[in-house]
Amino acid sequence: MYDVIIIGGGPAGITAGIYCQRANLKTIIFEKETIGGQIASSPLVENFPGCKSISGAQLATNFYEQADELGIPIEIEEVLEIIPGEKIKVITDFGEYESKVVILATGSKYRLLGLPNEIEYIGKGIAFCTSCDGAFFKGKDIAIIGGGNSAVTNAIYMSNIAKKIYLVDICDHLICEKTLEDKLRSLDNVEIIQQTGVKELLGDEELNGVILSNDRKLDIQGMFISIGMVAQTELVKDLVKLNKQNYVDSEDCKTNLDNIFVAGDCRSKNIRQLTTAVADGTTAAINAIKYIEDHK
Amino acid sequence: MYDVIIIGGGPAGITAGIYCQRANLKTIIFEKETIGGQIASSPLVENFPGCKSISGAQLATNFYEQADELGIPIEIEEVLEIIPGEKIKVITDFGEYESKVVILATGSKYRLLGLPNEIEYIGKGIAFCTSCDGAFFKGKDIAIIGGGNSAVTNAIYMSNIAKKIYLVDICDHLICEKTLEDKLRSLDNVEIIQQTGVKELLGDEELNGVILSNDRKLDIQGMFISIGMVAQTELVKDLVKLNKQNYVDSEDCKTNLDNIFVAGDCRSKNIRQLTTAVADGTTAAINAIKYIEDHK
Repeated sequence: MYDVIIIGGGPAGITAGIYCQRANLKTIIFEKETIGGQIASSPLVENFPGCKSISGAQLATNFYEQADELGIPIEIEEVLEIIPGEKIKVITDFGEYESKVVILATGSKYRLLGLPNEIEYIGKGIAFCTSCDGAFFKGKDIAIIGGGNSAVTNAIYMSNIAKKIYLVDICDHLICEKTLEDKLRSLDNVEIIQQTGVKELLGDEELNGVILSNDRKLDIQGMFISIGMVAQTELVKDLVKLNKQNYVDSEDCKTNLDNIFVAGDCRSKNIRQLTTAVADGTTAAINAIKYIEDHK
Repeated sequence: MYDVIIIGGGPAGITAGIYCQRANLKTIIFEKETIGGQIASSPLVENFPGCKSISGAQLATNFYEQADELGIPIEIEEVLEIIPGEKIKVITDFGEYESKVVILATGSKYRLLGLPNEIEYIGKGIAFCTSCDGAFFKGKDIAIIGGGNSAVTNAIYMSNIAKKIYLVDICDHLICEKTLEDKLRSLDNVEIIQQTGVKELLGDEELNGVILSNDRKLDIQGMFISIGMVAQTELVKDLVKLNKQNYVDSEDCKTNLDNIFVAGDCRSKNIRQLTTAVADGTTAAINAIKYIEDHK
């Protein structure tokens, strides 16, 4: 019987683990894939304070080692089912576990274009988060793929950093808010290309161009794919309340079930950054600790 | 003319600086005292993910070096006055500056007992935050000083970690919520001592006891002072809306003035931790960047 089972070994889950373990609670983390979560595949992280210019893989290793030194077990097991109740039953591909509380920290993933060599260019020209990686493209020519709020917001953000921005959108009109569109159209260094997709990625080690579906070639050093995220919440879709985009609804990292908490990118919120993930891990853990104290 | 002036060089302020600088904005941080803020005086930090078992001084150095490498100026100047407007004027003890936005990250400080050698024992037995430092007192005897919600919450939290807890309160009755008091009184390892203060701190290098005002001696290895915090908001009390406890009222790190943002411990919020401070720094910066984009 555990006090706390944490599902997801990314920054949010590991931070929750650190807080629960240091509160002397019997804690375990289950991760199905990669310890460190999405950040583990980032080539360089410059915006996490305290760890200057660190590779995502090294940062993930730091997270892991810190949890390990505190004695928190992190098991590579996939959670298949969560049966709620005063004692929550968690069934993985390796066994069955029970706990007083569960913290969901399953994350989200960026949607991809589906091109053959797309994954190989991630971190070598292809990126997703302008707040995270925009600074690496200072003075360069880049493309932003997408035509919704996040694509247009990313294009506006990058207009102050990159030299030239191509906004490449498959639709015949932008589907962002009117004020964003007005702002975008006022920018000198943004070219909007509509009804067009990307059909080929060019470059050796690093991306250095793309061929569009209209056969135009763009010489670019970077490309942000901004066609949405997918919340990793399939496991809990019948367990807790989700919003329309399938993120877990929460207030103060509490779900609609009083012994299930949520932290990080799988949660409904405005800003998904490393810093906000670790803050969520803290908040979910402190609320989980309080729940356990109150129900002793 | 700066884009962003950040007031306070603690974790929230430095994180805000990192985000603004990487968004290619002209940014400066003013700190009047200690870069790193309160955390700089913490002997050991174990709950900041990514930096395992690090001294507060080293963590503060990491924050500083990261900001410095990104080219963010951090000036040791005390801000004396902020004159709001479309261009905000910031007057320090060294000069006058102008910016489009200001981010307030002035922090808060723990209230002290006022004993002669109290400050020397901070980090050597005296602590304030149980989520941060409670784990260092596992299996030990400790005192919690105070009788309000935070003191009682700290005592309940520590009852699962420490061996014996003395709750020492100057008043004749606890002033916490009834449910907290009931919980506290149900705990076997907590002794409540009321109408009593601390008059003397004992120990050589480390605290090893206290003499109470009734002359009773407690042999303890740790003492959490839980008699409140003081928001460092004197500078802005006539500038932005504060709550009753003098913390800056905010939603999503926005104050009531549309080009003044707030981040970290000086902000009205539930959980004051390093992780939540850096998340605030991120949120304030992203909103400040958006304000500047919208007003170009």
